[in-house]
Amino acid sequence: MKHKRSMIISCALAVMAAAPALWAAPRGKEPIQPIAPVKVIDLAMAELGKKLYFDPRLSKSGFISCNSCHNLSMGGTDNLQTSIGHKWNQGPINAPTVLNSSLNLAQFWDGRAKDLKEQAGGPIANPGEMAFTHELAVEVLASIPGYVTEFTQVFGSGKIDIDGVTQAIAEFEKTLVTPNSRFDKWLMGDENAINDTELAGYELFKQSGCVACHNGPAVGGSSYQKMGVVAPYKTASKAEGRIAVTGNEADRFKFKVPTLRNVELTYPYFHDGGAATLAEAVDTMGRLQLGKTFTDEEKSKIVAFLKTLTGEQPSFLLPILPPSTDKTLRPKPFE
Amino acid sequence: MKHKRSMIISCALAVMAAAPALWAAPRGKEPIQPIAPVKVIDLAMAELGKKLYFDPRLSKSGFISCNSCHNLSMGGTDNLQTSIGHKWNQGPINAPTVLNSSLNLAQFWDGRAKDLKEQAGGPIANPGEMAFTHELAVEVLASIPGYVTEFTQVFGSGKIDIDGVTQAIAEFEKTLVTPNSRFDKWLMGDENAINDTELAGYELFKQSGCVACHNGPAVGGSSYQKMGVVAPYKTASKAEGRIAVTGNEADRFKFKVPTLRNVELTYPYFHDGGAATLAEAVDTMGRLQLGKTFTDEEKSKIVAFLKTLTGEQPSFLLPILPPSTDKTLRPKPFE
Repeated sequence: MKHKRSMIISCALAVMAAAPALWAAPRGKEPIQPIAPVKVIDLAMAELGKKLYFDPRLSKSGFISCNSCHNLSMGGTDNLQTSIGHKWNQGPINAPTVLNSSLNLAQFWDGRAKDLKEQAGGPIANPGEMAFTHELAVEVLASIPGYVTEFTQVFGSGKIDIDGVTQAIAEFEKTLVTPNSRFDKWLMGDENAINDTELAGYELFKQSGCVACHNGPAVGGSSYQKMGVVAPYKTASKAEGRIAVTGNEADRFKFKVPTLRNVELTYPYFHDGGAATLAEAVDTMGRLQLGKTFTDEEKSKIVAFLKTLTGEQPSFLLPILPPSTDKTLRPKPFE
Repeated sequence: MKHKRSMIISCALAVMAAAPALWAAPRGKEPIQPIAPVKVIDLAMAELGKKLYFDPRLSKSGFISCNSCHNLSMGGTDNLQTSIGHKWNQGPINAPTVLNSSLNLAQFWDGRAKDLKEQAGGPIANPGEMAFTHELAVEVLASIPGYVTEFTQVFGSGKIDIDGVTQAIAEFEKTLVTPNSRFDKWLMGDENAINDTELAGYELFKQSGCVACHNGPAVGGSSYQKMGVVAPYKTASKAEGRIAVTGNEADRFKFKVPTLRNVELTYPYFHDGGAATLAEAVDTMGRLQLGKTFTDEEKSKIVAFLKTLTGEQPSFLLPILPPSTDKTLRPKPFE
């Protein structure tokens, strides 16, 4: 009994040693909270989901995977104004980052998918994105013994359906959180994690009202807001926002407030990718949402703060995909 | 002195312990030799090269990287008949695998690049592939502090040029060997590594003459041969082979013999991707190159043997790319 207890204590100590001491003195009430480390519910399912996330055979062309537009080498985005889809189709909207997307109140800019699982099915069947159907995607996977085995291990049955496919992708996406940014270290009590300019930027961010929408652990992602509150936002984009979901005129041009986590990596900005740089984005937000014209010095301070929100990027082995067989439906990139 | 020697012996023992015991009794003279494990000359350079290999900012669109068509999740190929390039351009030829490509006598199907370094520059500037220029690619990289730092560490200077870029990519590609296939284990003396059908397939492969061209560690890659020796190969492809390099009429329709390593993963087959399955490829090769009509049983034995050539796939962390800055040239996917 004594031995057992001392083992438990040792384990607890080991955990404490692994966590930085600064966790001991978290900062008081701030409108932004640290990103919690990943909590994987089902590791085997997440591993399967990782393969599916990287598998271009979920597209008609055999060329486009989830990772094509939500590239995990590049902040979970494609860094393009709007995305490239099947046959080089120009997408209607900027690809939001998949990083920390589990923290969003809903998925897509207009929130039309209630969660990651529902989102994952969208692009596969969108004619302008992966241009496949759920039925054909499932048929492809079901013809690949490596997948059948893995689905059996994860779901207890080798019968693959789109429900399992999207559930596994969502499970992988839940692992894509980015804790331990410099700002989070500061939040957790490490005074030296950010410098005076960055801290001044954070103060400005709070005082100016940015924080009214960009708050919580994701620094956004928790509400829909009209793009262009004080003055209209000029754009060639035809996206109308949340009205497409609710049909409610009051929701016209309302979009999900994007997370600002890793915003240094997720350029260009806004639903139309219209702002190429962070300074430009801060300027536009100030004028159109807050009726405020930031000076260059103010903008550079806020940008300095925003760059402290870059967290640890997900680190994992590139998945090796199970090969197709003679029976697998072949991709049709040029049809 | 004595201490030093014993340390050397310990190290040697450790190495022997790590290597399977079967290395002790390698098989006698066979026309195929095992793939040697990776020998990295410069690890830091290979790490830089890995980033460049995955970086779509080396393309005009910001969407296509080396890994798009030589996908390391899929046997170093795109598993398409011919590749997709800038603006969904249909490429003229099947993308050869990058796996074990360091063993090829030259690069590309027609051998127009003498080595991996020379090859790496090709697709970047090819209007139908990445559609960029070397000058602009270098300009993009030079605007990214993360790359400047890494080039300085690797090359001793932060001055980035295409020579360094392609040298680093080539260094990474040298790591992409696939040792320890079941066939290699058999070659190294493990009798149980392949079964009787697979062994019979190997005997057929040798007796039928396949091995005349598909030999050495890469089981190919060491000569140019005419496609269609006994009877002409019918194809819609306009690729003319080695004549494009030498101007020599005798080289018309001569192509580099592809490696058969990992051939289970690198479907479809031939320079035009005309054979969807291994059985079809074996059938065509038998008839057109050897004047031999294999029975279904023979084909299935040879295919069984070919599948023993799948080696350990390169295993590495997905690289995280350094972000662009406000000064970085933006991609132009739709121009």
